[in-house]
Amino acid sequence: MSGSAATLDVAALRRRRVAELLPPALRAAEVDLYLVLTRETARDPFAEEVGLGQAVARAAGLFHLATGGLRARAIVASYDTSPVEESGIYDEVTAYAAEGLRPHLAEAVTSLQPRRVAINSSRDLPMGDGLTLGMLRYLEEALGDTMTAELVSAEDIVVSLLSRKFPEEVQRIEHAVVATQEILQAVLTAEHVRPGVTTERDLGDTLEQLTVARGLEVVFTTVVVGPCRGHASPSDRVIEPGDLIRVDFGVRHDGYCSDIQRTAYVLRPGEIGAPAPVTRLFQVTLAANRAAVGALQPGSTGLAVDTAARLLIEAEGFDGYPHAAGHGLGRRVHDVGPALGPDWPERYGDRVRAVLEPGQVFAVEPMVYAALAPGEAPVNIGLEEDVVIEPDGPRVLGRPQQELILIG
Amino acid sequence: MSGSAATLDVAALRRRRVAELLPPALRAAEVDLYLVLTRETARDPFAEEVGLGQAVARAAGLFHLATGGLRARAIVASYDTSPVEESGIYDEVTAYAAEGLRPHLAEAVTSLQPRRVAINSSRDLPMGDGLTLGMLRYLEEALGDTMTAELVSAEDIVVSLLSRKFPEEVQRIEHAVVATQEILQAVLTAEHVRPGVTTERDLGDTLEQLTVARGLEVVFTTVVVGPCRGHASPSDRVIEPGDLIRVDFGVRHDGYCSDIQRTAYVLRPGEIGAPAPVTRLFQVTLAANRAAVGALQPGSTGLAVDTAARLLIEAEGFDGYPHAAGHGLGRRVHDVGPALGPDWPERYGDRVRAVLEPGQVFAVEPMVYAALAPGEAPVNIGLEEDVVIEPDGPRVLGRPQQELILIG
Repeated sequence: MSGSAATLDVAALRRRRVAELLPPALRAAEVDLYLVLTRETARDPFAEEVGLGQAVARAAGLFHLATGGLRARAIVASYDTSPVEESGIYDEVTAYAAEGLRPHLAEAVTSLQPRRVAINSSRDLPMGDGLTLGMLRYLEEALGDTMTAELVSAEDIVVSLLSRKFPEEVQRIEHAVVATQEILQAVLTAEHVRPGVTTERDLGDTLEQLTVARGLEVVFTTVVVGPCRGHASPSDRVIEPGDLIRVDFGVRHDGYCSDIQRTAYVLRPGEIGAPAPVTRLFQVTLAANRAAVGALQPGSTGLAVDTAARLLIEAEGFDGYPHAAGHGLGRRVHDVGPALGPDWPERYGDRVRAVLEPGQVFAVEPMVYAALAPGEAPVNIGLEEDVVIEPDGPRVLGRPQQELILIG
Repeated sequence: MSGSAATLDVAALRRRRVAELLPPALRAAEVDLYLVLTRETARDPFAEEVGLGQAVARAAGLFHLATGGLRARAIVASYDTSPVEESGIYDEVTAYAAEGLRPHLAEAVTSLQPRRVAINSSRDLPMGDGLTLGMLRYLEEALGDTMTAELVSAEDIVVSLLSRKFPEEVQRIEHAVVATQEILQAVLTAEHVRPGVTTERDLGDTLEQLTVARGLEVVFTTVVVGPCRGHASPSDRVIEPGDLIRVDFGVRHDGYCSDIQRTAYVLRPGEIGAPAPVTRLFQVTLAANRAAVGALQPGSTGLAVDTAARLLIEAEGFDGYPHAAGHGLGRRVHDVGPALGPDWPERYGDRVRAVLEPGQVFAVEPMVYAALAPGEAPVNIGLEEDVVIEPDGPRVLGRPQQELILIG
């Protein structure tokens, strides 16, 4: 359907990430051992990045720097060895049977005599918080009194490994973004929106059908008319003249996601443009989005990005949005990256101060929530662009929205 | 494509589970509060069962018994309220903004003055181990010194809620099982297996194509020829005369999974049956499977099921398999249920002693791993049946395999 390159070899990419990015990350974190512990169902979301995504029984990945470079060892159940060996990530794969993971784990850890061990536990980075309480207790039980190492959070290691995308990954995201924008452009038209007839759900269904017809996968579809509903499913609400249609839509191409928002106004009989309050809301949202995008500079921080958008919105007399200005984008629609958030330690912790780096990709969505007339429920303009940080600054993927879409 | 009923209303089913099964489970566990804490990415796998499966930011579900019955309260970010409200599970949904979950969580918990609080932490039940270390620390931070409640594992609550299937759920599993068996029967034939030409991967692709053509979803596909490889992806190994083809295959129908294994022998020129060692391996595996199935009686235990199969295999002079005799089956291919395992506390803990109840569905797969000739690598017969426990005993879904499939 398109000129996109061949399917990305995800396994090769993961090997490359571990080989190239893990050694400097271990050094920077000053840890003697990075320990990933997982199992099926309550799986550490990071496990698949180190080839443990298919292990059914308890599995461990151990990474440390030795003379000669990175050493990677996995310990998995005997029936789980194949995919772990095939991942190509491990120098050594140990299989356990009835004796369980415990004795092997104890031997592997104690033989390294580590002082600082990084584990996937984090207050503010979900992708770095995959260690469950049950697995921690199992680890403690396995190590008993023999281990006195300090357990530290691996969140910086996880961010180093996942936030920067290789060029072939950015290419996939860009393909998904362009397709999403084209689908939205086709659907937010008089052809597909018939006021008094078409429902939110109809519009969502059309978006999904066009996506599948292009050979892409739908990641999520939000269509909202009327008051704000946040992350809501499309309802049976019929679209009427005077409505603002906000669409938040993401598709997946070859494993990589887009996350785009667009807004259309349905003209009333006789109208040739949106009412002034709608237009103003759009203009402020657009300006805030451009301010955030412009602040996505290598060496800057997510806090600076959020502040640029937030101050602009507040200067226009509106309230700041009750969330971050955006989020990382990649294989997941909310991917690992510095938080593009305000200085709300309770919500975003220190991750808003992480340094922005080339190769990071973000979805940018500062919002204005406001009533169009006194006493009405607040609405918003859905406007979200996807942006890659390049060495010389931000590059918006696809074609950013410039004007409010008018239907009718 | 089939006579299956309309799509199951999963949301209604979840409401019914919570309303009917949670109050007795809370009472049996003697807890004053059941607390589910989750967020996106490192999500508690149980969260979707209580309507928190779409929350992006930190979210809490609180369940307790009051005069008048079960009280359910959710606390979620303002942009996450819609799907939580729509779940219909909660009497009250509190939205938080910049102040975060913390103050609301502290107020909600301390106002109940609970002595025993159940949390999703478990050594041996992954579905009951969804609380991450980062979220536990957040909870402790939120509650500070004001809380002196004992935190206990919610694993019995999770098993009560999820292991027993409603009849309309068993119907879906049965539909998936019958389709899987029909597809396997069609594919393990001379039409699709051309010795010297067809590879493991070809066979896997054919299975998946036939599945999609029936409007079903592939859950996993394992095709193994030659030595055992456990949970392996199909390779480029060409199938030759004299090979044993083991297929482990699961499909999903209307959200519910099958998990079936079948084995075929590829006849050598002149052969009219499999060699004696292969036939014997099949007969012992079949007998072990029937023994395990027969032991799936209400009131019995998973340990009794495993023991029935294991003793039979050992009495025939083979080693016992290094895993359990089976696992729960439902919306997940490894679903919640009593463990059908041996008394290996390290691997299966106490869950092998949980009492079997009507409505539970299991995939049953005791195995014999043995070399067919001295010095050869071990092989096995893939034989797995799906079984529901009915009030008067086990019922095998679909048509169990009776004979080794012969090709050529």
